[in-house]
Amino acid sequence: MARVYEMVELELKGEAPIGSQVEVDVKAEITCDEKTWNLKGFYAGNHIYKVRFLPEETGTYRYKITGVVTGEGTVEVCPADGNHHGIVRADGTHLRHEDGTFISTFGTTVYALAHQTEEITEETFSSLECGAFNKIRMCVFPKHYEYNKNEPGHFAFHRAESEKDVVFRDNLGGERSVKPFDTHRPDFDFWEDFETKLNRLFDMGIQVDLILFHPYDRWGHSHMAQESNLRYLDYAIRRLAAYPNIWWSMANEYDLFYDWKMEQWHEIETYISVNDPYRHLLSNHKCFLEYDYGREAITHVSVQTGVLSRVAEFQKEFGKPVCYDECCYEGNLKETWGSISAKEMVNRFWKVTVTGGYCTHGEVILEDDIVTQEQQDNAILWWAKGGKLKGESPARIKFLRDLVESLPAPLEPYAVGLNKIMLMSKEELNSVMNVVPEDMRGFFSIFYKMGEKEKLYQFLPAYSYAGHIGEEVYLYYLGTDCPARFRPEVASGKSYRAEIINVWDMTREVVEKDYQMGDELRLPGREYTAILLNVQV
Amino acid sequence: MARVYEMVELELKGEAPIGSQVEVDVKAEITCDEKTWNLKGFYAGNHIYKVRFLPEETGTYRYKITGVVTGEGTVEVCPADGNHHGIVRADGTHLRHEDGTFISTFGTTVYALAHQTEEITEETFSSLECGAFNKIRMCVFPKHYEYNKNEPGHFAFHRAESEKDVVFRDNLGGERSVKPFDTHRPDFDFWEDFETKLNRLFDMGIQVDLILFHPYDRWGHSHMAQESNLRYLDYAIRRLAAYPNIWWSMANEYDLFYDWKMEQWHEIETYISVNDPYRHLLSNHKCFLEYDYGREAITHVSVQTGVLSRVAEFQKEFGKPVCYDECCYEGNLKETWGSISAKEMVNRFWKVTVTGGYCTHGEVILEDDIVTQEQQDNAILWWAKGGKLKGESPARIKFLRDLVESLPAPLEPYAVGLNKIMLMSKEELNSVMNVVPEDMRGFFSIFYKMGEKEKLYQFLPAYSYAGHIGEEVYLYYLGTDCPARFRPEVASGKSYRAEIINVWDMTREVVEKDYQMGDELRLPGREYTAILLNVQV
Repeated sequence: MARVYEMVELELKGEAPIGSQVEVDVKAEITCDEKTWNLKGFYAGNHIYKVRFLPEETGTYRYKITGVVTGEGTVEVCPADGNHHGIVRADGTHLRHEDGTFISTFGTTVYALAHQTEEITEETFSSLECGAFNKIRMCVFPKHYEYNKNEPGHFAFHRAESEKDVVFRDNLGGERSVKPFDTHRPDFDFWEDFETKLNRLFDMGIQVDLILFHPYDRWGHSHMAQESNLRYLDYAIRRLAAYPNIWWSMANEYDLFYDWKMEQWHEIETYISVNDPYRHLLSNHKCFLEYDYGREAITHVSVQTGVLSRVAEFQKEFGKPVCYDECCYEGNLKETWGSISAKEMVNRFWKVTVTGGYCTHGEVILEDDIVTQEQQDNAILWWAKGGKLKGESPARIKFLRDLVESLPAPLEPYAVGLNKIMLMSKEELNSVMNVVPEDMRGFFSIFYKMGEKEKLYQFLPAYSYAGHIGEEVYLYYLGTDCPARFRPEVASGKSYRAEIINVWDMTREVVEKDYQMGDELRLPGREYTAILLNVQV
Repeated sequence: MARVYEMVELELKGEAPIGSQVEVDVKAEITCDEKTWNLKGFYAGNHIYKVRFLPEETGTYRYKITGVVTGEGTVEVCPADGNHHGIVRADGTHLRHEDGTFISTFGTTVYALAHQTEEITEETFSSLECGAFNKIRMCVFPKHYEYNKNEPGHFAFHRAESEKDVVFRDNLGGERSVKPFDTHRPDFDFWEDFETKLNRLFDMGIQVDLILFHPYDRWGHSHMAQESNLRYLDYAIRRLAAYPNIWWSMANEYDLFYDWKMEQWHEIETYISVNDPYRHLLSNHKCFLEYDYGREAITHVSVQTGVLSRVAEFQKEFGKPVCYDECCYEGNLKETWGSISAKEMVNRFWKVTVTGGYCTHGEVILEDDIVTQEQQDNAILWWAKGGKLKGESPARIKFLRDLVESLPAPLEPYAVGLNKIMLMSKEELNSVMNVVPEDMRGFFSIFYKMGEKEKLYQFLPAYSYAGHIGEEVYLYYLGTDCPARFRPEVASGKSYRAEIINVWDMTREVVEKDYQMGDELRLPGREYTAILLNVQV
């Protein structure tokens, strides 16, 4: 039975395409009441063509399929079952499902989930049952990297065996010479298996930040001609765009494609945004060089950084949701990106989350008995292959997620102390100077004299992490600060219930039922404390 | 008996000065072998004039005093007793006593030490016996600040009762109207008491970073006319310059003197450097706006910052020793500068120290039973008044100090990983590009494209903290990184003894007696680990 917010699939038998199996002429006109959608179908192999669409309202959907296969009929679409809320879209700096429900994402990373054995995959899905995560970052193409060198069972496309080799140096320095991929010929086994995973993730309510390109490659996926890149996107969009739970991540670490020009990325960005009939979330993840998140088609900021204080800054600059899609991984590797402690991972989630951003986890815990290079290549690290979660951060992330989901609306950054000044332009400082008490003007005058670099150096380590929901909720996170007394700012003249949260021990304690602006709270003076203040009605 | 590196004091009786008790005409010519020093004496009250000098070599010192008092004679100066090593001076980016001994300073902060009761002072000196610290930052003038509002017993100068009031707003916003200080009239009781403390600190081998001006003031010391400021310096230099253990800190948070012009600071700087016959270390401590540490008379960098990765940057920019004279305080205050955990304080010391910088501690632990404003004003917090050290960081700082003092020479920053690139100019990048393997050039090309701000954001959280002493010693500090395996870089072809250090538990364990470049060490995978590698001979 078709339901709102669940993909509808129409299947038609036909002749196998002659020539391209991607650029097939299958058009679908879907109508419901006054509305019409013009979509493309795709060839799924074995003489089967499919058209997929995503109903977002109840009603009778009439379809008319023309081209190499034809068909028409109706689909009755019932109301949503309550478990699904539709595509996630940016709403200002927040994320909201199609039905209006807000979502705070708690991401994790299993880059090569699409290319693992059934056994590992089953473990991965069991692990995801922990409920810490409602978003996963994963790649379409296989991944070649330290601790992750297994040969995938299937590629997204067959190779063009008759063409001459593509020669390139892979990301680990190896010389490679391979037949190019023929993006006219999808490997249907791959796509079916891939969609099995997407379906399971959908059933679990997990958003999929789908990484379309990445540079960790020995097979040639990162060295295709641009027309092949676009053809691949054509196929991916025809097949996948009706999935309600996918986001398009143009790349992971796009800037590590050293010989790609920026125009190429812009072309890919435009191609996706023009051709995706549902306009899923779209961004481009960076390593060193920020992509221009101000571009119109880019729906949100997707960054890799260990500077946790930038949510408000990005929000102000771009007016879009801010995803910290990489901030190092909980683990014990020799690599600095893979050796932060569980405490530090949790610390980072709290900093990003309380200030209204969305954070992503990863785990790279290498067992002691893994010694040789071969053992390392075959190690099962969550961040690449999935498997079992071994770390201590997911339980704490779940605790944070539960807390955030209990709030009435999304958190916004709340500027306290010097944070207020941090993001001010000269003009804003001017307007403030007119209202600050005379005895504070000397202090404020300093901020006119600070250069950009001086400001950064000054404020980064002094940043205060706090969020609020209007005057209803305030949430302060103190990190390694250990005040024994604290006067969280709240709205004047209102009464709040104050809870002290130990983010590591996962305890919450109501310490004051009538907290008012100016009051002082006693805190335990311990690291990793948060304070939640809910207005009393 | 006079000794090298100990102050010699000559005392002469005379008429009390008529007019200024500071600008007294007492000249001393000191000669020893071929050398001559022309010094000024000072009036110490009670018809006593004093001339002080600091012998730095053995020999017969002949003095001839002229002016309002006269006298001549000789002083026989014996060799140093081995406990004292003379004035600390900058030697490149390191600190070295006059006798050539290197010193790594481990500072603490007791701003208002000069203005406390005997009881508290005795406790302070007992606390300093812990041996964690060999430098203290303290003010000449009393301090008016939260948790520190006591009235001092004596000021450095008497007030000019007949002059009209100086009206100003104090640093906490209070309106003040006081008689100006008469810097022609020192309060000798103050100076004697002050010197008792300097002498005790000298005996304990503690350097005194003497803060000459500061803005936390309700009495008017920060609102004197510039000619009074200079006259005060005249007296301070006449009295104190022969102390081997003092450094001149022009100010604490000089930039919080909102109405002082930069020229005023330059004049003070020049005055001190021209008039101090021994050219003690001289710097100016900042809050927000960096002083120009490149100025010729400035001997070292004295900063307040929570960005711990700047030692190498400052060294490169200025070629001078780098003192992190404020990086927040261990404590439990509501103020963010006073609530870092002991672990974080220790973490900061390690980061600064292993990279060849010098860090300063402070402690602000407020007892639970202190509730009222009056109790808070009278609280005894180490950072202001001294008293008992209650925190957990000093023992760990002592542990670090012992380790550093066991090394054969001062640590220099050792650039590992991306640190190497962090400080490179475009020109340096160019020269590197010529030698990096071809397959790394794409990666390196990224760094040409990064803006200043992007670079900072990128590198600050990824900074690796490591130091070395040539090829003899390497010291890595991992902070919250928890690798279970690690390949510290050492010189090729040499063998090292590898020790794993738990900087919090204060344990050292030799884990490998023949560590060579490229080997892998197993680490405990715990936060706050350091690795010390000593070359084997």
